[in-house]
Amino acid sequence: MNDTFLKACRGEKTAYTPVWLMRQAGRYLPEYRKVRSKVDFLTLCKTPELAAEVTIQPVEILKVDVAILFSDILIPVEAMGMKLEFSESKGPILYDPVRNDVAVSRLRSIKAKEDVPFVMDAVKLLVKKLNVPLIGFSGAPFTLATYMIEGGSSRNFINTKRMMYQTPELFGKLMDKIRDTVIDYLQAQIDAGANAVQIFDSWAGVLSPVDFEAYALPCVQKIVSALKGKVPVIYFAFNGSAMLKLVKKSGADIFGIDWRIDMADAIGMLGSDVAVQGNLDPCTLFGPKDLIRDRVKGILNRAEGAKGHIFNLGHGILPETPVENAIAMVEAVHELSSR
Amino acid sequence: MNDTFLKACRGEKTAYTPVWLMRQAGRYLPEYRKVRSKVDFLTLCKTPELAAEVTIQPVEILKVDVAILFSDILIPVEAMGMKLEFSESKGPILYDPVRNDVAVSRLRSIKAKEDVPFVMDAVKLLVKKLNVPLIGFSGAPFTLATYMIEGGSSRNFINTKRMMYQTPELFGKLMDKIRDTVIDYLQAQIDAGANAVQIFDSWAGVLSPVDFEAYALPCVQKIVSALKGKVPVIYFAFNGSAMLKLVKKSGADIFGIDWRIDMADAIGMLGSDVAVQGNLDPCTLFGPKDLIRDRVKGILNRAEGAKGHIFNLGHGILPETPVENAIAMVEAVHELSSR
Repeated sequence: MNDTFLKACRGEKTAYTPVWLMRQAGRYLPEYRKVRSKVDFLTLCKTPELAAEVTIQPVEILKVDVAILFSDILIPVEAMGMKLEFSESKGPILYDPVRNDVAVSRLRSIKAKEDVPFVMDAVKLLVKKLNVPLIGFSGAPFTLATYMIEGGSSRNFINTKRMMYQTPELFGKLMDKIRDTVIDYLQAQIDAGANAVQIFDSWAGVLSPVDFEAYALPCVQKIVSALKGKVPVIYFAFNGSAMLKLVKKSGADIFGIDWRIDMADAIGMLGSDVAVQGNLDPCTLFGPKDLIRDRVKGILNRAEGAKGHIFNLGHGILPETPVENAIAMVEAVHELSSR
Repeated sequence: MNDTFLKACRGEKTAYTPVWLMRQAGRYLPEYRKVRSKVDFLTLCKTPELAAEVTIQPVEILKVDVAILFSDILIPVEAMGMKLEFSESKGPILYDPVRNDVAVSRLRSIKAKEDVPFVMDAVKLLVKKLNVPLIGFSGAPFTLATYMIEGGSSRNFINTKRMMYQTPELFGKLMDKIRDTVIDYLQAQIDAGANAVQIFDSWAGVLSPVDFEAYALPCVQKIVSALKGKVPVIYFAFNGSAMLKLVKKSGADIFGIDWRIDMADAIGMLGSDVAVQGNLDPCTLFGPKDLIRDRVKGILNRAEGAKGHIFNLGHGILPETPVENAIAMVEAVHELSSR
């Protein structure tokens, strides 16, 4: 078992900096597209053998140091009682958006082992097959709430913020149901064998610091403290780089860092008692290989002050990315960080 | 003449904190929609009497302390030689996106007084009619380049970054043409009577700090130094809050601050030798009036360390915003900051 990733999570010395890519199991890989061509996206998520197959692909193709379960953050939301669909053009659609008391009351916190057993089955399959650690994951409550309230992706999150500001108690009731779902969901993945978990707060960055602290952070803190000490917990508040001091209050062990901040500045804000993960602009992989190498080097240098560093992109790899450039990135990380 | 805004720009004491709203002349106002219903968007921009009329509307309705010329950042881009259209659903469309040497060579830097005289005519009309200062504006070169290369709005800016990384000289040639256009365009607005200018770098925040410094900042620095000392220069690098130390290197007098950062943290990064403008989340205006007032108070307090503070939203006012809440915000700023 390659334990470089877990060592870096704990801040232990490693022979080189471990690396993975957010969305590394995905559309940029021809091998993924081949599997996906046979089934729709949700079926792929819900079929353990297929989910496991695409989870393993980037480990073999890119030689990354860790796998992340192939799934979607909206899987537990569907199980909470919403109708979910993926549209090729519009992305996820959640029918009957949650905008009033009746809609919130109708939702239930899930029991993951009964409600989404296929996730745990995929985790169990993977821990048997993999020679690298496996990351389980969940969306953070605020991020999941935006999808539930907006009915899908959004540009300005007006419905979400309107509920937050105008009916804070109702918003809180919704967030608490999601929080309990997330705790149960991540605990079940850990019980099935996940070696670490990541909480994706993809839309935390649409909140001002004062709103983040009031409406989003408390639920993340409860989730982290429920899991603390069991496995390393990574918290990624995308586009929250200017409020990392608040983000740190989540209590996580490792913090995802997007590409909008210099890595040394991020570490300065977080302190050197936590590990960091990131922070290459995914678009760098559209540049020539010498530029990729140069940027990898820059980030490795700027991350030296952290307790631990897991190299990653600052956001998911884009579907249009040339595979050879992703491979070149992983090779550059391994080579340039070799100690 | 109400000179509170200009005093705040210069860091002089004011009786209260001046306030305006980005996109204050716009769709949320029924009075604007009435004018707009008679002509299409580009005709409105190009008809000095109508542009002046909608520019004045928010000064009278909201009682803001400054007017900003009604126009669009793509007006000079069209004059550089691109075909521009506004689609109700897709936003701006620039035909034949600029992606190779031939396309860049075909573009020309504009002479604003000859190429877009209607802009200067609107400015001249306005300075006669207004009892508050007038801000002229332009898009920043990087932001304008993204529209020209992508052919409109974009999600991931892959084409822009690909050109930047793969053919940096070609990208630089494009940026230089835009830079010269922007200098001439802003100088012409100043000559026509604009009392201050704002450079909108709406997409600066999609760049990592290292890319911002290499590819976007140098042109902004040249623009600012060409105009420095003539009128106050505001630079707004939207979503660049985690790299404000680099943003400051532009040399501007006033810095726009979005809502993703605590205002005191922003001032800490910029230093207290410059003025700031912002930073209320536009969605706050969908909340109840006591929350709006509370958030206004918070920002006023957190801005006390700046050389000067112009209250504003952290981004443009949204079309769905209730007008009464915008009025309540302006009143709260005036009342709570009254010295």
